[in-house]
Amino acid sequence: MIQQKQALVVGAGLVGSLWAILLAKRGYEVQVYERRSDMRQAGFIGGRSINLAMSQRGWRALEKAGVKSKIESVAIPMYGRVMHDLEGDLTFQPYGKEGQAIYSVSRGGLNLELLNIADSFDNVSLHFDERCKNVDLDKNEVRFEHIKNGVQSNVQSPLIFGTDGAFSAIRNSMQKTNRFNYSQSYLDYGYKELSIPPNSDGSHRMDKNALHIWPRGKFMLIALPNVDGSFTCTLFLPFEKEADSFEHLQTDAQILAFFEKYFADTLSLMPDLLADFHQNPTSSLVTIRCNPWHYQHRVLLLGDAAHGIVPFFGQGMNAGFEDCTILDALMEEHGEDWINIIEIFNTPRIKDADAIADLALQNFIEMRDLVADPQFLLRKQIEMYLAKKYPSQFLPVYSMVTFSHLPYSQALAEMNAQNRLFEAVFNISNIENGWRDNPALDEVFKNWLEQRAVLALE
Amino acid sequence: MIQQKQALVVGAGLVGSLWAILLAKRGYEVQVYERRSDMRQAGFIGGRSINLAMSQRGWRALEKAGVKSKIESVAIPMYGRVMHDLEGDLTFQPYGKEGQAIYSVSRGGLNLELLNIADSFDNVSLHFDERCKNVDLDKNEVRFEHIKNGVQSNVQSPLIFGTDGAFSAIRNSMQKTNRFNYSQSYLDYGYKELSIPPNSDGSHRMDKNALHIWPRGKFMLIALPNVDGSFTCTLFLPFEKEADSFEHLQTDAQILAFFEKYFADTLSLMPDLLADFHQNPTSSLVTIRCNPWHYQHRVLLLGDAAHGIVPFFGQGMNAGFEDCTILDALMEEHGEDWINIIEIFNTPRIKDADAIADLALQNFIEMRDLVADPQFLLRKQIEMYLAKKYPSQFLPVYSMVTFSHLPYSQALAEMNAQNRLFEAVFNISNIENGWRDNPALDEVFKNWLEQRAVLALE
Repeated sequence: MIQQKQALVVGAGLVGSLWAILLAKRGYEVQVYERRSDMRQAGFIGGRSINLAMSQRGWRALEKAGVKSKIESVAIPMYGRVMHDLEGDLTFQPYGKEGQAIYSVSRGGLNLELLNIADSFDNVSLHFDERCKNVDLDKNEVRFEHIKNGVQSNVQSPLIFGTDGAFSAIRNSMQKTNRFNYSQSYLDYGYKELSIPPNSDGSHRMDKNALHIWPRGKFMLIALPNVDGSFTCTLFLPFEKEADSFEHLQTDAQILAFFEKYFADTLSLMPDLLADFHQNPTSSLVTIRCNPWHYQHRVLLLGDAAHGIVPFFGQGMNAGFEDCTILDALMEEHGEDWINIIEIFNTPRIKDADAIADLALQNFIEMRDLVADPQFLLRKQIEMYLAKKYPSQFLPVYSMVTFSHLPYSQALAEMNAQNRLFEAVFNISNIENGWRDNPALDEVFKNWLEQRAVLALE
Repeated sequence: MIQQKQALVVGAGLVGSLWAILLAKRGYEVQVYERRSDMRQAGFIGGRSINLAMSQRGWRALEKAGVKSKIESVAIPMYGRVMHDLEGDLTFQPYGKEGQAIYSVSRGGLNLELLNIADSFDNVSLHFDERCKNVDLDKNEVRFEHIKNGVQSNVQSPLIFGTDGAFSAIRNSMQKTNRFNYSQSYLDYGYKELSIPPNSDGSHRMDKNALHIWPRGKFMLIALPNVDGSFTCTLFLPFEKEADSFEHLQTDAQILAFFEKYFADTLSLMPDLLADFHQNPTSSLVTIRCNPWHYQHRVLLLGDAAHGIVPFFGQGMNAGFEDCTILDALMEEHGEDWINIIEIFNTPRIKDADAIADLALQNFIEMRDLVADPQFLLRKQIEMYLAKKYPSQFLPVYSMVTFSHLPYSQALAEMNAQNRLFEAVFNISNIENGWRDNPALDEVFKNWLEQRAVLALE
């Protein structure tokens, strides 16, 4: 049981500022230290993607923080994927049931709202331009240095939360302690953001209520809508070694030839392609895993600091926010008994974070390759049908991750089970010509359910 | 092509001191910096295991360094494993063919010899008590601080080798560079060293020409002979959570009861058991992997700094030494073209290091559990028979790792293939009663060879 309800939150990004709010609501005195300048004065400085896909887990957290309706009013629902093929022909694939959507949200705008709410609490104090210089885990003390005036200060707290992102300084200090498992693993792919500006009347140049994908097998382009009428596009491409890679996109001619070959329908939409391409960085994609997430139940990592994942399931922020809602529920139940709270939280949450890390890596293959595959699209259609016909027995994995609060590890296990189901489904002759009330499909499905029941008993 | 034949070696443990010798022999001016004091004056300070199992790969490196015969004269051959069961009954299992052995060698003695040889070169300078304070990768510069007098010095070199062990400071600086893949993964097991002293006449209290194992399923004790007539024992046991774990071995009564239950035959051999148990640390077991091992072909990690592995295949030092012999052969071929040398070295060597890391993890299960399994011992006997009958077509994995220079990754692939073979072998009825010139075995073996040939063509 901690003696004083005090907490230090290191990092005021999305997860840090949300977590400060939830702690404040529980009556904690919260000190928040952030390396960057206050974006409310300095403006939002990127470094991370411009927009995000908010889904169920994220919304629940925003509701707890009391900011859901405000964010909702400027979020753009995306009801499905629109695939662009080489000829520019479009295919639509819904994400879930009628009306279900993921929402394109501005990272900067969301962070700003969360900071405003955090700042509105008397028991929260925000400190910007403070770089973490040193962490003394045993003393529960962090030394910060003010970036502009060089003043150093030691901040001690019975609880320290590391919400300082994928390159967390708090985690880096924990890495040197005994038996701390850690991995950072990079994809051979980089990404670069590009922009599709609005029409002159401010409207979007493509359907704004969808996530656009140009799947090209080994690489892809995607686009998410912004409220100002623009789209932010992201090109995911191997760094090098492949013929189609960033390494071989140096000159204007190379870049234009590449886009003409693979993304011809975007050329007329991206007047600033060459300037964007040259100016914007080529960023890397890392997966971070560690275990435990805490040091002696007094220092705890949350969000990307604990589990940085690749963006292909749109769950990075959602998973970080869910860390906070789960912990908040544990505070509800266990009060200030943080030894117990962290003990209960650590192991299953790491399992779930590992699962969404794996799912996100796998979803890259789905997005860049499978969504262009007729059999994959057929499977998605049959999934929708089964979900509607057997709502209590079949929930597609995408829906489980995106539109439910079921543990990510359950979604990962379900994926393997559903892969087995669809192996059998695709053995049904002529299934592509009719699955609605097809008795062969019903039988395959019932056999699968029975098998699962048997497996569950074993 | 580097301009000057200069190199900085950070860390003068086994791999660092060997590597300094090989560089010196190729005409490099070598600066060696080591954090510890010179063991030739200060005595050997542990922290790592007291003895090591030297095998083929290690001997080749020592031969290159010109120290093989000297070490050989004080190495103790171990021709196989002696398993001690709960009743104290013994089973012997040879490691290889007649005369093949792994050799118990003193870590301190070996390190000392290597330092002496390194020091005998005019173009090697050794610096002790120098702690690495900072690494500037882009400037090729390392700052050291003398532990005793606090004097700091910057050492710049066109080539820097990080041979500073599993907790490498050089690697730690590389970890912060973009796209550096890294993992540190701990077993839930700890280990503790204990001692069996010599008889009063200086002789060994057990057969000295074997590695002794007390396999107990989830944990084990092992013992390796020392030249002074003693054995160094190591207890590998879960840290906690299990009934049999270090957590539950706190009092004298608990420790004695545990040894009486599981290792009764050792009690009379270990008069200092309780003192050893309380005084000696419980150490952890880590696997370190990273990729790439170099920074811009100018800074290169070797040995545990690049690939720390668990000790269960006795290959940690052997693998580190093999790094050096492979690089030495590349120097022979490519002169000072280090860009080329490191480019050729990096990818396949990482694959091999990953393979021996996996093999070492798997061998823990073999040592603590399988060696007590009659079917496993039968397999080992049939392996020996097949190796003798089909010497060009069948080499047991243990021999491949221990008595050959074949790449570790080939041994790992071979293990999977041989597991398939033995699935079929154990389907032969009555195989346990006779495998010599058993036509069924010959047929299974020939089918397996044919399958492999087909697989190889695919």
